[in-house]
Amino acid sequence: MSEYVSKKVAIIMGSDSDLPVVKAAVAELKRFGVGFEIHVMSAHRTPEAAAEFSRNARANGFGAVIAAAGKAAHLAGALAANTSLPVIGIPIKSSTLDGLDALLATVQMPKGVPVATVAIDGAANAALLATQMLAVYDEDLARKLDAYKAQMSEEVIRKDAALQEQLETL
Amino acid sequence: MSEYVSKKVAIIMGSDSDLPVVKAAVAELKRFGVGFEIHVMSAHRTPEAAAEFSRNARANGFGAVIAAAGKAAHLAGALAANTSLPVIGIPIKSSTLDGLDALLATVQMPKGVPVATVAIDGAANAALLATQMLAVYDEDLARKLDAYKAQMSEEVIRKDAALQEQLETL
Amino acid sequence: MSEYVSKKVAIIMGSDSDLPVVKAAVAELKRFGVGFEIHVMSAHRTPEAAAEFSRNARANGFGAVIAAAGKAAHLAGALAANTSLPVIGIPIKSSTLDGLDALLATVQMPKGVPVATVAIDGAANAALLATQMLAVYDEDLARKLDAYKAQMSEEVIRKDAALQEQLETL
Amino acid sequence: MSEYVSKKVAIIMGSDSDLPVVKAAVAELKRFGVGFEIHVMSAHRTPEAAAEFSRNARANGFGAVIAAAGKAAHLAGALAANTSLPVIGIPIKSSTLDGLDALLATVQMPKGVPVATVAIDGAANAALLATQMLAVYDEDLARKLDAYKAQMSEEVIRKDAALQEQLETL
Amino acid sequence: MSEYVSKKVAIIMGSDSDLPVVKAAVAELKRFGVGFEIHVMSAHRTPEAAAEFSRNARANGFGAVIAAAGKAAHLAGALAANTSLPVIGIPIKSSTLDGLDALLATVQMPKGVPVATVAIDGAANAALLATQMLAVYDEDLARKLDAYKAQMSEEVIRKDAALQEQLETL
Amino acid sequence: MSEYVSKKVAIIMGSDSDLPVVKAAVAELKRFGVGFEIHVMSAHRTPEAAAEFSRNARANGFGAVIAAAGKAAHLAGALAANTSLPVIGIPIKSSTLDGLDALLATVQMPKGVPVATVAIDGAANAALLATQMLAVYDEDLARKLDAYKAQMSEEVIRKDAALQEQLETL
Amino acid sequence: MSEYVSKKVAIIMGSDSDLPVVKAAVAELKRFGVGFEIHVMSAHRTPEAAAEFSRNARANGFGAVIAAAGKAAHLAGALAANTSLPVIGIPIKSSTLDGLDALLATVQMPKGVPVATVAIDGAANAALLATQMLAVYDEDLARKLDAYKAQMSEEVIRKDAALQEQLETL
Amino acid sequence: MSEYVSKKVAIIMGSDSDLPVVKAAVAELKRFGVGFEIHVMSAHRTPEAAAEFSRNARANGFGAVIAAAGKAAHLAGALAANTSLPVIGIPIKSSTLDGLDALLATVQMPKGVPVATVAIDGAANAALLATQMLAVYDEDLARKLDAYKAQMSEEVIRKDAALQEQLETL
Repeated sequence: MSEYVSKKVAIIMGSDSDLPVVKAAVAELKRFGVGFEIHVMSAHRTPEAAAEFSRNARANGFGAVIAAAGKAAHLAGALAANTSLPVIGIPIKSSTLDGLDALLATVQMPKGVPVATVAIDGAANAALLATQMLAVYDEDLARKLDAYKAQMSEEVIRKDAALQEQLETL
Repeated sequence: MSEYVSKKVAIIMGSDSDLPVVKAAVAELKRFGVGFEIHVMSAHRTPEAAAEFSRNARANGFGAVIAAAGKAAHLAGALAANTSLPVIGIPIKSSTLDGLDALLATVQMPKGVPVATVAIDGAANAALLATQMLAVYDEDLARKLDAYKAQMSEEVIRKDAALQEQLETL
Repeated sequence: MSEYVSKKVAIIMGSDSDLPVVKAAVAELKRFGVGFEIHVMSAHRTPEAAAEFSRNARANGFGAVIAAAGKAAHLAGALAANTSLPVIGIPIKSSTLDGLDALLATVQMPKGVPVATVAIDGAANAALLATQMLAVYDEDLARKLDAYKAQMSEEVIRKDAALQEQLETL
Repeated sequence: MSEYVSKKVAIIMGSDSDLPVVKAAVAELKRFGVGFEIHVMSAHRTPEAAAEFSRNARANGFGAVIAAAGKAAHLAGALAANTSLPVIGIPIKSSTLDGLDALLATVQMPKGVPVATVAIDGAANAALLATQMLAVYDEDLARKLDAYKAQMSEEVIRKDAALQEQLETL
Repeated sequence: MSEYVSKKVAIIMGSDSDLPVVKAAVAELKRFGVGFEIHVMSAHRTPEAAAEFSRNARANGFGAVIAAAGKAAHLAGALAANTSLPVIGIPIKSSTLDGLDALLATVQMPKGVPVATVAIDGAANAALLATQMLAVYDEDLARKLDAYKAQMSEEVIRKDAALQEQLETL
Repeated sequence: MSEYVSKKVAIIMGSDSDLPVVKAAVAELKRFGVGFEIHVMSAHRTPEAAAEFSRNARANGFGAVIAAAGKAAHLAGALAANTSLPVIGIPIKSSTLDGLDALLATVQMPKGVPVATVAIDGAANAALLATQMLAVYDEDLARKLDAYKAQMSEEVIRKDAALQEQLETL
Repeated sequence: MSEYVSKKVAIIMGSDSDLPVVKAAVAELKRFGVGFEIHVMSAHRTPEAAAEFSRNARANGFGAVIAAAGKAAHLAGALAANTSLPVIGIPIKSSTLDGLDALLATVQMPKGVPVATVAIDGAANAALLATQMLAVYDEDLARKLDAYKAQMSEEVIRKDAALQEQLETL
Repeated sequence: MSEYVSKKVAIIMGSDSDLPVVKAAVAELKRFGVGFEIHVMSAHRTPEAAAEFSRNARANGFGAVIAAAGKAAHLAGALAANTSLPVIGIPIKSSTLDGLDALLATVQMPKGVPVATVAIDGAANAALLATQMLAVYDEDLARKLDAYKAQMSEEVIRKDAALQEQLETL
């Protein structure tokens, strides 16, 4: 195994109109101090650029690739075709079919080329998943993830307590 | 406009397991005397070969490209990303979801990169559609298509007549 | 083959309420300098007019027919029944079922009568597809399509560059 | 109102492959002594014949039209476009999508042109519905329908009694 | 056959919240001069009243029953269980599932008890269908329906003409 | 509260063809020693018998009602309309739509008339749920349910152990 | 059977954002004077707390547990895994897929661990169902439920009467 | 970062009936020489055992967890709730709904607890994805994955060549 150097995460959007959803992934990566790049690249409008980015992603220091796309969402699959890094797909809901098209086009990948698919518009979870992948061999990052889990749990407990106080008003 | 030379049709399958369905496209192209090539190429396993084939398809004498793929069916879109020839998509039904995944992954293409989608497993219609495209400027081929239409009509009439003869047994 | 004369594209809407979506098809045909006619005709309210238009479309100089309809969208199929020109179907999203009804009613055509279906509300792509069909034997038009492809690619690259400049603000 | 003459029911199948399902409609019409004709006619392969049949159906003594078709099932709508007789649609399940395509293509008709849709493959019910329509002004037929209802009820009661006898073996 | 007396149409809504949709049925019946009653009755909240209404509907001079209900839409089926009059079901779209639940709960009736189902929220068509049923043996009403068909056709032609005049502005 | 007398469970099937699925409910009730009756009754073919059974169910010693029906599955709702006992619905998968129709027709009940819906073809769970309802105030039965839970857990553990032994052969 | 003590109902929400829907359950329980607790607990963020609550629910005087959750709605199942009390699931509609995901994730439970599922966002019915369960052995509560049923029926009759008065204005 | 020690992959099945599908995951892990354990554990029948396994998975040397479950597939989510290791979900197709229920129940996870979902029955891809995760910091494993990719590509090319040889027989 090579000497340890922190890996970055690449976030690729099929269109800049996906940014309002994808921003949540940026926020999570910043929370965990994970380095990242974010790009607009399209499986259909810039196929070569996307393929080349993906082919070089491991060599360029990336440890995971996140792809966000809507409708016939090919982006995650197109990137996964060109790298053996794990590729995470975020199906983006568009104006018809409520995101079902993007979900199926992202998750139903053929044998040999997996895409790790998260929920429709699930950008924050895509970033968390990427962080979990980087944390497999990074105990510091793993500890941060565990702390985040504890924090989520406390937040639920706080909300339950708050609910008890407003019981009268229900 | 260049001097008229008959164009060929390319049939690309994502997997050789699609052949039982795709054979019907071959039969139709033969019926109309349309030249063709048929290949196994995968958007995910041989992405560069597929892209290169598509980039050169017009120069290599093709007039239309048919792509057949199942599940997260990216093949037609991946070919359409690399050519301005019309690309026809055949969504292939696989073992889950009854073909809905392939249909949505083929038809819901983003603005700028259309795929002419036919019915799930509709290989014969894909070939007919390709023939119709070649016949836009080819009157001989158009006449053959009209004759085929007439023949279909006669077949229905024959079947109706046959039905009348077996009425007693219904 | 007949002497070359530029073909027109017919755009048929099932209802004038489809115009806000269908306008995008007009814009694309104008972009490529493709001649067109646009009509309101209904498979169910003016079936004979629709059939007659379609039967005469080739003789009247059309090279492709675009049909836009919602719900039990029969228009594209009804036109395809009466011509051997390629017919392109745009499924229109209506107030229920998010366009799934129109998509299935357009794309699932029986053997012998294909409809080249594009995405739900995909009017721009329908026009591009029609243009691609006319460009099979028209090198000038093909060059324009290739230029459009290059332009889309550049636009994505520009958007990616713009994204890099706003990285701080994400 | 014209002098009373018993009306016939027309059963139109889009393909003779629908006969195994449609036979159940024939059986029901025979049960009630309702006159009928059965034909193979296609909205897409013999559109003019279908339209003409429908235009003349009322004059030719029909009181209702049943149409059975699968996939992008346009037949019922195409007939309804050409007659003001009630048209009953049977969506036929085909090899993909489990009949959902035919159901939506049959039932989601636009304002002005209704199709009375029954269950997927519901041929017996289509015939019953046609019989109910003829019975609106035909008391004899209405009595037969009421008797049939009573008979169905008795059959259920008989089955319940039979079930009680095999309780030990459950 | 009994002496001819014009039959009425019953419109039954599962909830008064369905009135905004169902009003369109009233408008159509008024257009054709068809007598009607309209009621709120629920398969689940007033099951006996609904059953009794249905059992007596034929004797009370009704020729067809229209039922509008949403979600697990049982109303049409509950009425059909108690009469041999034709029952027409309008699936009402509610706040979840876009009307698919009501459509399936209305149309997928078991053998022996058909419901003539129209499109989701298709109240106008339900009334037209009821009118068509009454017109099977009523030539005056049939002529009105034919005139309405002609009028729809003219309206489409007018809209097409209007479209031609605004072509410049598209 | 009245003196404690063990309540029975009623199992009602819409058709005797549902018995192969419903048998699993009988087996579970026998496992827990819960008294039951099983009947064939139809919301559409014997609506009055079904309504009457339901109206009298509480007085006749039943504590819960299980209803199994397919397609436009109205049976559970029809029973729930006539009793304030808890009604459990089993959506039965039929030959089309994979059980989705029965699921939606059973679960999407309007406000005021709930149906406790279990999985498609989930007859065993329907019986368990009925048993859980009877066990709310019956500690013996509750203990049996807890024991059953423990037994399920042990069975999983046994299967895991068995799996470890066949690891070589995977 | 133990001495009778009124049981409470537990309402558990996966997120406090479910409160606007879940409030309707509180209102129904108050209407019937059923004691309850309401908590925010998450199958995924506070799995141990949820499991522990459920394990102790019977001992703590609960007779039924209501769980409301959206998307991959595991909460009801997670609670049902840890108690033999009846667990009622409310699938919550979220921003994508119109509640279908939550419905399937709640209702399709495996053999041995039922969840009594109500309609999407059907909080009022969940509370009614819980009340029905408590009323199996509580005649007073049963009488209240019957009175509520009668009241619903009267409300429908009142609405029908009101409709008759506004007939002119339709 | 801790000293490098190869991580294992855990494969957890909700039921031993999933083994025929899950075996493909075992085969892939063996192909890449990745250590693994495979267990039957159920989110609903052995919730504590599953939670405990997951809580200790990182400490026990696992780098990724694969969970396979059908219907209301909660297993992957239940494991993800208890570990910050990446959890991969395989939705298993069962006898109803064609795997759609398991897909939605696996992929639509709420914010904070991602599950990396692969295609329905996509066990081989789940193992490949786990291997990709372990390979982020393991260059040897990454090289094996790249070699596998090259091998898949060659296989497609071989199949294309074979297809050319059987062209005559198509």
